[in-house]
Amino acid sequence: MKPVIVIHGGAGALTRQAMSPEKELRYLAALQDIICQGQRLLTAGASALDVVTEAVTMLEDCPLFNAGRGAVFTHQGTHELDASIMDGRTLEAGSVVGVQRIRHPIQAARKVMEHSAHIMFTAAGAEALAREQGLEMVEPDYFSTDERYQQLLAAQQGAGKVLLDHDAPLDPERKFGTVGAVALDAEGNLAAATSTGGMTNKQVGRVGDSPILGAGCYASNRTVAVSCTGTGETFMRTLAAYDVAAMMEYGGLSLEKAADRVVMEKITSLGGSGGLIAVDGQGNIALPFNSEGMYRGYGYADDKPVVAIYR
Amino acid sequence: MKPVIVIHGGAGALTRQAMSPEKELRYLAALQDIICQGQRLLTAGASALDVVTEAVTMLEDCPLFNAGRGAVFTHQGTHELDASIMDGRTLEAGSVVGVQRIRHPIQAARKVMEHSAHIMFTAAGAEALAREQGLEMVEPDYFSTDERYQQLLAAQQGAGKVLLDHDAPLDPERKFGTVGAVALDAEGNLAAATSTGGMTNKQVGRVGDSPILGAGCYASNRTVAVSCTGTGETFMRTLAAYDVAAMMEYGGLSLEKAADRVVMEKITSLGGSGGLIAVDGQGNIALPFNSEGMYRGYGYADDKPVVAIYR
Repeated sequence: MKPVIVIHGGAGALTRQAMSPEKELRYLAALQDIICQGQRLLTAGASALDVVTEAVTMLEDCPLFNAGRGAVFTHQGTHELDASIMDGRTLEAGSVVGVQRIRHPIQAARKVMEHSAHIMFTAAGAEALAREQGLEMVEPDYFSTDERYQQLLAAQQGAGKVLLDHDAPLDPERKFGTVGAVALDAEGNLAAATSTGGMTNKQVGRVGDSPILGAGCYASNRTVAVSCTGTGETFMRTLAAYDVAAMMEYGGLSLEKAADRVVMEKITSLGGSGGLIAVDGQGNIALPFNSEGMYRGYGYADDKPVVAIYR
Repeated sequence: MKPVIVIHGGAGALTRQAMSPEKELRYLAALQDIICQGQRLLTAGASALDVVTEAVTMLEDCPLFNAGRGAVFTHQGTHELDASIMDGRTLEAGSVVGVQRIRHPIQAARKVMEHSAHIMFTAAGAEALAREQGLEMVEPDYFSTDERYQQLLAAQQGAGKVLLDHDAPLDPERKFGTVGAVALDAEGNLAAATSTGGMTNKQVGRVGDSPILGAGCYASNRTVAVSCTGTGETFMRTLAAYDVAAMMEYGGLSLEKAADRVVMEKITSLGGSGGLIAVDGQGNIALPFNSEGMYRGYGYADDKPVVAIYR
């Protein structure tokens, strides 16, 4: 059993043709930086919980990914951010929904977990708690980037369609943006974290799978830590993250088989698309996706980081 | 296989000593009326989806129960209502979170399911959709009753404690309020619906298990329809509703064994309390709870309704 971190930066219709070599390198470099930082922390003995918090914080800070700075715009030109975190050791969890002023929504989810009797807070409730806990607050336009704004305009001109993430898509309806991390630490503890800006041009108030325990995020030391990305609604209807755990615990499936069955059979049977990352207590990992690509990578402690975008 | 409806009106420290005989009769009569209406609909060939919608609408209208009119107050003296519904035939679902102006939150959840590409909407987003769909809107104080207001004052005087539902509790921290219904119709379809006002004196923005698919509500024709009530956070951490389905599907457990294991082992192992109602595709039902009481009842089509409060 070796400590390991696995991250994703969203899945969708990512094809080599649609992306410039420069842009591809920027994505790969960003993923690699974050994995290396996770590896350093794991080697230094950090907890899985701290490692996924740090990795998702870095993903939120990177404008390439649809979470934190660089989050997509809602139909009304605002940002509504969702995030969740779960500690596999205790099954404790925290989640924030529709926040607009917290620089790092994943840190707010962690504060909810650690400083509240509750698990999930929406908008103003979450922001009040984040402020009390001393988290960095920002103006709502902190999250805006010109590239995301152009995507909003494109989506609104395209008959008001919802645009599912990322840049220069071949098929705008088949790109999804979420970021996430899962980790196993040296003490055998698992943790998972997920954060998102949702969908470009989404209706205000829409909540996807990212802040929902068991849908977009789940961790239990008994089984597995999972973070998902894709068409949120199908991940909610299938309880995708928890379903991996349930198939392992009750059905005796391996991590690989359980993760594959969720992504390649259950999600697709409902017309959904996307992928997930997962790690079990033995350090086995899985990164299945049924879309053209998924920004992803992993790194075992004291080993080389591995990053990839396409199949 | 006979069509059947099962309902609950919350669980907690309900003891005969704490309730007057008159009040007990009012609860039993209310439960019986709603079950009888569900039985009539089922006999007339109504769908499970229509039956659970109607039953929860009636529970929301009854001020005895903590949902719709008679919902508890938040810390700020407002009401924030959550509801969800799931169709076992299609795995489609709808959910609303923190709404304040929709008379019947369960009907709003159903509108989200039927008229939106999404599953979950918070506050203003949910209310805009409900208004568009012609649902009855009310002033926020429509939901207020004097009895609930007295409970808020009592909770705030009691060192600001959160009060978990219902009247004259022996131990205010051990009463929970949610309503729910599950049904099997003549065509073999299952459905589940859950609605709540949350917890007296709760922090604004707190979301419990009721609007979360797989936590407080789940239905799949492959397995089971489930609606939960109790300490919401433990039902979220255990994915209580979906866990019943997963144990049946992957572990081969009977409905009764799966429901019992969730309520009597998994929820209690995390320090949680409450219960659930469930029905499978063969018309087997389960109504386990680990608290002193649960307002509950069921009725098979063309049979006598059965209602109960205590063990």
